[in-house]
Amino acid sequence: MKTDMTVDDLLKQQGAWLAPGEDSGIVVSSRARLARNLKESAFPGWAGEEECERILAEILPAVEACAALQPCFVLNMSALDPLDKQILFERHLVSREHAERGRGSALVARRDETIAIMVNEEDHLRLQAIRPGLGVREAWQVIDAVDSEIEKTIRYAFSPKLGYLTACPTNVGTGLRASVMVHVPGLVLMNEINPIIKGVSKIGLAVRGLWGEGTEAIGNMFQISNQISLGEKEERIVGSIEQIVLEIVEHEKNARERLMEKKGSVVRDHVGRAYGILSHAHILSSKEALDLLSGLRLGLDLGILKAKNRQAVDALLLTTQPGHLQKTQGRKLRTRDRDLARAQRVRQQLVRAGVGMVEEKKKE
Amino acid sequence: MKTDMTVDDLLKQQGAWLAPGEDSGIVVSSRARLARNLKESAFPGWAGEEECERILAEILPAVEACAALQPCFVLNMSALDPLDKQILFERHLVSREHAERGRGSALVARRDETIAIMVNEEDHLRLQAIRPGLGVREAWQVIDAVDSEIEKTIRYAFSPKLGYLTACPTNVGTGLRASVMVHVPGLVLMNEINPIIKGVSKIGLAVRGLWGEGTEAIGNMFQISNQISLGEKEERIVGSIEQIVLEIVEHEKNARERLMEKKGSVVRDHVGRAYGILSHAHILSSKEALDLLSGLRLGLDLGILKAKNRQAVDALLLTTQPGHLQKTQGRKLRTRDRDLARAQRVRQQLVRAGVGMVEEKKKE
Repeated sequence: MKTDMTVDDLLKQQGAWLAPGEDSGIVVSSRARLARNLKESAFPGWAGEEECERILAEILPAVEACAALQPCFVLNMSALDPLDKQILFERHLVSREHAERGRGSALVARRDETIAIMVNEEDHLRLQAIRPGLGVREAWQVIDAVDSEIEKTIRYAFSPKLGYLTACPTNVGTGLRASVMVHVPGLVLMNEINPIIKGVSKIGLAVRGLWGEGTEAIGNMFQISNQISLGEKEERIVGSIEQIVLEIVEHEKNARERLMEKKGSVVRDHVGRAYGILSHAHILSSKEALDLLSGLRLGLDLGILKAKNRQAVDALLLTTQPGHLQKTQGRKLRTRDRDLARAQRVRQQLVRAGVGMVEEKKKE
Repeated sequence: MKTDMTVDDLLKQQGAWLAPGEDSGIVVSSRARLARNLKESAFPGWAGEEECERILAEILPAVEACAALQPCFVLNMSALDPLDKQILFERHLVSREHAERGRGSALVARRDETIAIMVNEEDHLRLQAIRPGLGVREAWQVIDAVDSEIEKTIRYAFSPKLGYLTACPTNVGTGLRASVMVHVPGLVLMNEINPIIKGVSKIGLAVRGLWGEGTEAIGNMFQISNQISLGEKEERIVGSIEQIVLEIVEHEKNARERLMEKKGSVVRDHVGRAYGILSHAHILSSKEALDLLSGLRLGLDLGILKAKNRQAVDALLLTTQPGHLQKTQGRKLRTRDRDLARAQRVRQQLVRAGVGMVEEKKKE
């Protein structure tokens, strides 16, 4: 069942990756995506706009009919303005590359944003499921079911020797990229993140920033994902990510314990400054906001800060992003005006969410 | 009338330079000091300890008897431990150099700290009067009267051609150094302080940091003083300092107006961050505290912040200094422990002084 949904409607809900989940203080969200292509059709990068439109027309009915996707909505990239596309990107529904596309490219997604399918990005189909917290196995199971359903009507480009064929050789095989976003301020504050990143890279996994490939790690958030999709079973890819993330969670918990034990003042200072600045600044860049929100979330996890509404705090990770800010203000803003609007939103939201220092409460 | 007074007693009062005075938001305090030496006695740097003790014994009765100094107290530098000396230095009662002296050197001061006389610093006598706000003329009149009274019994080293003779040639002549401490965050935020410093230097005045010669300007506080004491009448020296300070006050007021008009968000951000960090940090260095307190005081001056007790805020300029912190804690503290104690004191004092954002109050 296809429903009408605009980008404006999306702003009224929280975004699938921000809901609270298991270990959600440390594991923010999990994602599994499959790259698929139609048999005997040129990859989107080679096909012209018309060919892409033909492919989209062929794919769309099969995707829209998919049971797991219901209720779903479809957005044609050609019908969206740059701000709408930015919103979709910030919500992790489309990639930066897909946001730049127009005619012949579309997004089909479940209304609750837990499943998002890009048609004619780098591949004809990029199927993605997202879960809050550590749910990479669940995410894979969900997207695997969607894939199987689509495969009933669509003939994929598949080689018995190599597996699924994709535009970029790194995706050939399973076409699977499983990734988990972790928030590890403890490891960063203890200066222990670099050995972990090195260790993760050594076993063939990648560590990236908040928005995946080529993005910087800000707000102490890192994305762990598989590098290789060829020659390994999906089960094993998902299993190794799961295992390494569980290990990172243990390391982070351990780092937080040691921080509180041995560097209590350093943590309280870090958290206090983050809260003090976020509550009173009038100019906040996107990067500074994310970095300080990391301190705030750490404070909430450790009980240094309290919040009546923790979700309203986490929502700031999304609503302080440039696209979301501008959409809510109803107009395009220059960088400086965004920094002002962002600071104002953060100040108001922290009051609304009832955030405060725990120790200060004790003294009253 | 000599009274008993210990360094501990000093801590119970505010310090002469911190009282509220005219334009005290911008002009913190004014000082006039005279350098004097006994006729036919070696300068302290040449005299041995015994000679210094003899000179002190000769000087002390004349100084103690001085009417303007009453009630006064005497502290022998040899009887003070390093922490006591640090307190006197932080209260601007003795110089760094005098604090390092022992036998034969003393401080004679009015109980209210408005007059302080160092015996056997670089010169036999350094007579100083201090006033809150812009009171350099008054300070000079006070110290001139003290000087005249002492001169009735003590024979000063004086040359009819050069004037008063001093250990360092830069003080020969009037022996007068008049100085005014200004707090000019507006000029600093508008990037207009450097031309002012250059201009002041060109007309023969010096611009220095918070603790005079060789100290860095922190907390946006600068000391304006005369460089030359030879060949100019005291009246003229005082007059030119007064005039230049009035000009700086005008420039600062003007800078603040333009800041509020054209860079309102920058000021609110600067003030908000200062307040946010001071209220919530758990580790504060001395320099950071002074820099942030500058932002806080600017906020109070501009009505961005309010305080039930402004003097309690200003007192932090003194009580967050290393010596004062350690004296109040009753023990020597390592740098890190001072930073913890300083942050705690600031947090508590801001609550006690009833400091808060004005805009936040409006919203409630």
